[in-house]
Order: sequence, then C-alpha cells, then structure tokens
Amino acid sequence: MASSPITMMKMKLNNCSPPSTAAAARFLPLLGPHQIRFRSSLALFHNPSFPRTIITRSTFSSSSIITGKFFYFAIPKLLSCFVFRRDVKNLKLEDDQTRIQRSKMGLIDGIAAMASEASVKVIDGKKVAKDVRDEINAEITRMKDSIGVVPGLAVILVGDRKDSATYVRNKKKACEAAGIKSYEVCLPENSTEEEVLKYISDFNDDPMVHGILVQLPLPSHMDEEKILHAVCIEKDVDGFHPLNIGQLAMRGREPLFVPCTPKGCIELLHRYNVEIKGKKAVVIGRSNIVGMPAALLLQREDATVSIVHSRTKNPEEITRQADIIIAAVGKPNMVRGSWIKPGAVIIDVGINPVEDATNPRGYRLVGDVCYEEAIKVASAITPVPGGVGPMTIAMLLSNTLLSAKRINNFK
Amino acid sequence: MASSPITMMKMKLNNCSPPSTAAAARFLPLLGPHQIRFRSSLALFHNPSFPRTIITRSTFSSSSIITGKFFYFAIPKLLSCFVFRRDVKNLKLEDDQTRIQRSKMGLIDGIAAMASEASVKVIDGKKVAKDVRDEINAEITRMKDSIGVVPGLAVILVGDRKDSATYVRNKKKACEAAGIKSYEVCLPENSTEEEVLKYISDFNDDPMVHGILVQLPLPSHMDEEKILHAVCIEKDVDGFHPLNIGQLAMRGREPLFVPCTPKGCIELLHRYNVEIKGKKAVVIGRSNIVGMPAALLLQREDATVSIVHSRTKNPEEITRQADIIIAAVGKPNMVRGSWIKPGAVIIDVGINPVEDATNPRGYRLVGDVCYEEAIKVASAITPVPGGVGPMTIAMLLSNTLLSAKRINNFK
Repeated sequence: MASSPITMMKMKLNNCSPPSTAAAARFLPLLGPHQIRFRSSLALFHNPSFPRTIITRSTFSSSSIITGKFFYFAIPKLLSCFVFRRDVKNLKLEDDQTRIQRSKMGLIDGIAAMASEASVKVIDGKKVAKDVRDEINAEITRMKDSIGVVPGLAVILVGDRKDSATYVRNKKKACEAAGIKSYEVCLPENSTEEEVLKYISDFNDDPMVHGILVQLPLPSHMDEEKILHAVCIEKDVDGFHPLNIGQLAMRGREPLFVPCTPKGCIELLHRYNVEIKGKKAVVIGRSNIVGMPAALLLQREDATVSIVHSRTKNPEEITRQADIIIAAVGKPNMVRGSWIKPGAVIIDVGINPVEDATNPRGYRLVGDVCYEEAIKVASAITPVPGGVGPMTIAMLLSNTLLSAKRINNFK
Repeated sequence: MASSPITMMKMKLNNCSPPSTAAAARFLPLLGPHQIRFRSSLALFHNPSFPRTIITRSTFSSSSIITGKFFYFAIPKLLSCFVFRRDVKNLKLEDDQTRIQRSKMGLIDGIAAMASEASVKVIDGKKVAKDVRDEINAEITRMKDSIGVVPGLAVILVGDRKDSATYVRNKKKACEAAGIKSYEVCLPENSTEEEVLKYISDFNDDPMVHGILVQLPLPSHMDEEKILHAVCIEKDVDGFHPLNIGQLAMRGREPLFVPCTPKGCIELLHRYNVEIKGKKAVVIGRSNIVGMPAALLLQREDATVSIVHSRTKNPEEITRQADIIIAAVGKPNMVRGSWIKPGAVIIDVGINPVEDATNPRGYRLVGDVCYEEAIKVASAITPVPGGVGPMTIAMLLSNTLLSAKRINNFK
C-alpha cells in the first residue's frame, strides 16, 4: 500500500466524486479525526469569502493569527507541511438515532461526522417529522372527540411499479399511525383513463375523503395533466394544481395547500429557528414539485431568492452567496464545499442512490450536496437520508388534516 | 454665481437625488458634452467590476492603458485633475421621435443623451409598440376577412377617478385604432357588487366579447378578488387570475394569458435581440402585476433570476451582478449608476411623477432607474416615458386578439 495518509486524506476529500472513487474509502481509518478537522479548517481559509469572515471556532490558537490577510495568504502554505493534533470535543450534537443511521453509511461518514459535529448542526428531519406526526395525532384525536370526524386520505395507484407500491405502502402506514383513515385503490397497468377518472370523481364526492393523491408516474397511455386536474381543488393535498401554485406565487393570496416537500423544507428551517426574512436564499433546481414552489415559499417569507438551474452559467458563484441553500436537483453530490458560504444553512432535498461496494445493498443514498465537504463549511445541514425525506410524508398528513378541518369548519 | 463648472457637474450627476436638487440643472449648459462623457468613463473605472471588464470604447487612447490594474488604481486619481476634449461621434442611435420627446424632459437630459448615445442603445418602446399594433391590425384584418370575426374588449369602470377614466379612454382609443371593438360600461361609485358581477356575467356569455377588463382600483366597498375571479378564465386578458399565474410558474404548462406589462418587457428584450437564456437577471419589485410575473417569464426563458424587494438587505450588490435588470418598484431613481454592471440591459417599468419647476406642468415623469447615470454604464435601456409604458396597452390588444383567435379556433 503505497499511499501515505496525506494522499488518502485527499482521496477522502474527493469522496463526493462519482462512485468509482468510493473504493478508496476503506483506507481512511488511517487518518485520525484531528487530521480531518485540520483539513476542514484549511478549506475555510481557501474559501474566497474568508477574508471577510470571522471564524468563531478555530483549530489554531488565536495568538497565531496576526491579521486575516496574513493568515489567508501566508499561513496555509506554511501549515500544509504539518499535521496538528487537537482533542475533538463537544461531539454530541446529533441525537443517537441519527448517528446510528449515519454510521451505517460507512466508516468514512462516521469519521467525518466526528470531526465536524462540533461546529455544524445536523438538522434532524426524522425527529422533526416525528414531532409533527405526534402533533397531528393529537389534533386528530381532538377533532374526533369534538365533532366525530376522522380525516381520510385516498391514494390511487395504477400499474405495478415496485417503487410506487413502496411509496403507497409507506403512506398508508404513516396514515394509520397518525390516525388518518386510508383509502387505497390499486388498478392494473392497462386500466383506462376513464376508470381512473371515475375513482377520482367518486372520491371527490365522498365526504369521508379529505385528500386525494394519484401516485405518479402514471402509465404512458394516460394524460397526467387531465387526471391530476380532475382532483377537486379542495382535496388536492399534493398542492400541485396550478390554481394552488398561482395562489402561492401571489402576494396577499393564500394557497389551499402547499406542496409537501417544499413545505417540509420550510418547516425544518422554522423548527430550527433559522431566520429567513432578509436572508439570501438560493434554490438549486426549478422543478414543479420542489424547486419552484420552494423558491415561492422562501419569497413569501421575505428571503431574497435566486434560482439556479441547468442553464445557469455560474451556479457555484451564485450559490456561494447564499445564507440558505435548498438543493433539489437530483444530482449526487453536485454542491461541493467550495459552493458554500461559511455559516450557510443547507436543506438537501436530493435522494440519489450511488454504487457502494462496501454496502450490503450495493448502493447508498446521497444528497445533492456533498455532505462530507458541506459539514466543514455550513452552520446547519440536513443529512441524507434522515433529513427532508421523512418530512414529505409528515406534510402530506398535515395537509390531509388541514383539509378535513377546513371542510368541516373545525378550528 | 460661485459654483464652478466642476461643482455643477457633480450636482448634475446627482440629478437622481430628490427633486429639490433639480434647480441646479439650469447651470448645466456650462458643461460641454465631452466633459460629461469623460465623467462617464471615470464612473466605469470606479465600478468594482471594472478590473474584469474590457471597455470597448474608451475616451482615452488605448496606448495609455498599460495594465487594467494600473489603470484602475493610479490613473483615475491622476486624470481627475484634467478635462479631456474629444469629438462626440455616432450620436444617431435613437430615432428622432424619441429624442424629441426626451429633449422635452429638459436640457439636462438632452446633454446626457448626447454624451452617451454613442455607447448606449435606447430601447424605443414607442416604436416597438407601434410595430406590435400594426402587426395586430394586420392579423385582425386577416381574421375578419377570413371568418368575419372582430375581436371585442369589454372594459368596466366603476366610480369617477380621473386617472382611471384616462386609462380607459386610452384603451378605447388604442382598441379602435387597432380594429378591436371596444365595449365600455361606466358605473357610478355607489354601485353594488351585484351590479358589477351582473355585467361581468353578461360579458362572459357574450360571444362578441373576447376580453374583459375591470379597471382597478374598485371602490372600497367592493371585494376586488371576488369580482376579478368572476371574469371567466378564457377572457381574463389581464392574465391576473391565479390559475394563469400558476400555469406561468409551472414548467411544461402554458398560461392562457401573460400579464400585459411583464409581457411587454420581454417583448422589448426579444425585439432588441437581447439574449436571455443563461443570463443573470434581477427583477426589482415583486408585485403581482409586474415583478413576480416578470421573474417567472425570465425564468421560463432560462435566465438565472434573483428577485430584489423591500426586505433585501443588499439590493445594490445583487443588482450589480445582473446582465438584465427589470425595475418595477415605483420609487423614482432608486437604481443608481453604481448598481449597474457595465453593459447590462435595463428595462425600467417605473413611471413616477417628481416635482419639476422647470416643467410647465410642474412635474416630470422619471423611472425607477436613474436614467442619467444608467446610460453611462448600461448597454441598453428603456427611457421613461416612451419605454415600457406604450408596450402595456399594445400587449392588452395582443392578448385580446389571442383570445379571439383561440375562442374561434383561428390560426
């Protein structure tokens, strides 16, 4: 094994490269956490924003800092010859469940987490989603006791896609756990548009059903837009109807429902007391399902929003200005550490499977943001998995409860 | 008169300050156009973007430029002691009509225009609007000859506001000139909501009417949202219905109508061959009528869009990154020269009256952008008046024609 620890560390720092380099990961135990932390600090100095940035926690003693400029220009080159040792303290920032889950992602992630937990707050979507579900459950009990109404969510699944079946099963489970009655219709792949429309029409008229969800994608012979528009706007808990989106975009208007995933992103920011008003937010991706409504929501909360997309010429430069980043582009590890302003808050919506020979399943899930690099720069970040993912279903339940309350005029 | 020409020039450069300084304007004939142009060039050097910017036309001979950095740090201070003379050439970039109109705005503007016309293109909204109206007229003739249908626009005016009456009169005139039949209903201030709704309902059912426009603002005892929503979506030529806005926001969807003023802004960019795709655009203002839909339109055209608003902490810094600026905030001269990246294209939607003792009417109209400063930095700009203003009515006629064609399935 010819590679020195320093070389390996560099390979580790490129762990956000395509999965073919992932094999290098197994060498990483050669490095101690102090070394990774040292590297993390250096990354900050190389960040163009550094001269204007005060680093609140430094690996180096403050007496060694004469001026920021001196430090920026001279010290990094000097220091790159040495390795500093320092104890890693205050590591307990995540709850145990998240750490266990993340440690499953491999030893690399374990080390990176140890090295950086002291300075970055991990936004625990699993915990927040559980809190939200508990609150929903309490509200459902209150409504049932008060007016005898139980919220109902109807899900229509067409075809036999395994992933769709899994999603529907998860939604059903979550409904039951929260006290929402679940109505499920599974139709064969070769069903006609008319059959689907008939079910939607029945659910539209059914007073026991307060939310209707058509699982996408539909078979290719069906007109998706036509079918989605058949869901009456008062039961469109997905919030994808253009009338809802229009109300979301307009000042002084209120949408009936906010789409679940972007609603979950904002809920995470709220629950972690991240100030949005007046902050510069960058949304990466402009999909109808996440990016676009997320940008509209941030704007409603008085952020200054920029939308980065596939045609953006300098995504890195624009993203680096953001206090808040919502990444929803579906490209594994696209947002690197160098894209991130020190202290930014990152909501990573991406859930991308990448090959991983060390994982029993042969793959692991990563976000759109290179987590290992981001935790060295950001002040808070959602992990993948366990960040935005669990919030989406929680928000679907929230929208269904909201609908049942509105239809029954229950406050 | 103690003030030297140099002092006066500085006052001139602050002409975008509140109108109280406007009195200084009468001293400006003391300055020749070459002096103003010299100042214009200096302004470029002081712009933070300069070191990365190549100035294609310089007042100074190119041999005097050794390196960009030397020029940036040393030369401006040196040169500020002298005044260079140079002939002003190639001034004929605007058409005569626009120049005559702008010269009415005072001698200051006349001089500024002379000094900068060589490097900035004035986007002539009056001319483009006329071209659009001529094209509409030709299409209306073709439709009438082919299927015997004449587009009809109904305007409902409630109350006796003079400005509203003027707008309605102008719309009627423009309709008649373009060959669109105008239907006008004027109701007294104390009309009931039901009366207005009855007229809307009648126009909704009238096959001769293809567009319905309720002049805003309505009297305070009426529910504006309720009344606007009563206009059937197929005749909502204003394009303000949330369903339209939703379709505008969503990728892969098409709104029935695009709101007139933002549509006019984009039309100007198209007609002047301004590339939008991949460019960084900043929209200042987020109103439902202009800013928000303008941002959505720019995004549809693949610009990277940022929205600046009253809660934005650093509007100047963000705006200075833009290749395209759409200013729609309603604050006279808010966008100063220092906000503008050299070579940016500016669409100024603001039409703000400011006091002007030198004007027979006692006021003059200015935009949201300080025109005198902007023409020294931008590559193209809309004047106020004569920029976006004339485009709004042209786009209303365009939407009415579009509606008549769609309703009658005429290609």
